[in-house]
Amino acid sequence: MVKKILKSKSKRKAAPRRKSSSSPALRNTVIKSSRPAKLQYIPWSTIPLEDLNPLLQRQFIVGHEIMVARVLMKKGCIIPLHSHLNEQVTYILDGALKFWIDGKEIIVRAGEVLTIPPHMPHKAEAIEDTIDLDIFNPPRADWMNKTDDYLRRDEPADK
Amino acid sequence: MVKKILKSKSKRKAAPRRKSSSSPALRNTVIKSSRPAKLQYIPWSTIPLEDLNPLLQRQFIVGHEIMVARVLMKKGCIIPLHSHLNEQVTYILDGALKFWIDGKEIIVRAGEVLTIPPHMPHKAEAIEDTIDLDIFNPPRADWMNKTDDYLRRDEPADK
Repeated sequence: MVKKILKSKSKRKAAPRRKSSSSPALRNTVIKSSRPAKLQYIPWSTIPLEDLNPLLQRQFIVGHEIMVARVLMKKGCIIPLHSHLNEQVTYILDGALKFWIDGKEIIVRAGEVLTIPPHMPHKAEAIEDTIDLDIFNPPRADWMNKTDDYLRRDEPADK
Repeated sequence: MVKKILKSKSKRKAAPRRKSSSSPALRNTVIKSSRPAKLQYIPWSTIPLEDLNPLLQRQFIVGHEIMVARVLMKKGCIIPLHSHLNEQVTYILDGALKFWIDGKEIIVRAGEVLTIPPHMPHKAEAIEDTIDLDIFNPPRADWMNKTDDYLRRDEPADK
């Protein structure tokens, strides 16, 4: 039943696979199969940092319906305009991240939080070296299965 | 439809109101009405710290289906045994928290994470002054409407 709801939502909101910054809705960001809910004790130091591009590294932990990611950005790192079904909460632990979102520019600094509703397009740029804690519900399937091509660019395309 | 699922889950899992540490399942930890999904920019410094007991302070941010809380515990603070429908991810930012969970004792230190499945009973004690980031899905209704009596004790009851 839940699966059906997600599917119908996904149908309603789905957009063609992103070709440029003018069609930023990401597809396949939700795992369709059910994940086990299990107790996990995980030091961040045991999770390898994944290199996505020269300015961007990431590690994440997946619970049942929650994903928590530590995203390390060097100054100048750009997250291209995109959107996803997954709700996102961004908590900046260190540094500063400038967002373009909902027609506004918002600088989120260390100790500050941005809650991003499902399907809201957003772009970001690290204006300092930044440690960003990103929380998603449900977990980002495209991050888990490495289909997050929009982040895996040597040169950001749409500054 | 989502509401119906939550209700039926809640019925299935509901337990009598907690009277002692032997019946730790908390009721009414899920908001029944739908919350808006909205963009929010929130510095933690703008959210007053709530004093729950002499060793425990808390502040939280509620998104759509995600709640993020900063929980400040003085050494010796005890979170009594309890469980809830909400999935929990605990990320210790500073200090150390000892858990009794799933028949084990686990010390979670700064830079470490515990993912706690729905309905799994857990008790914790701050073995140092601790800053704990707790993430819930769905948000903890009992925290939002201040019915979290299990935390509002002057003297911890079940050490």
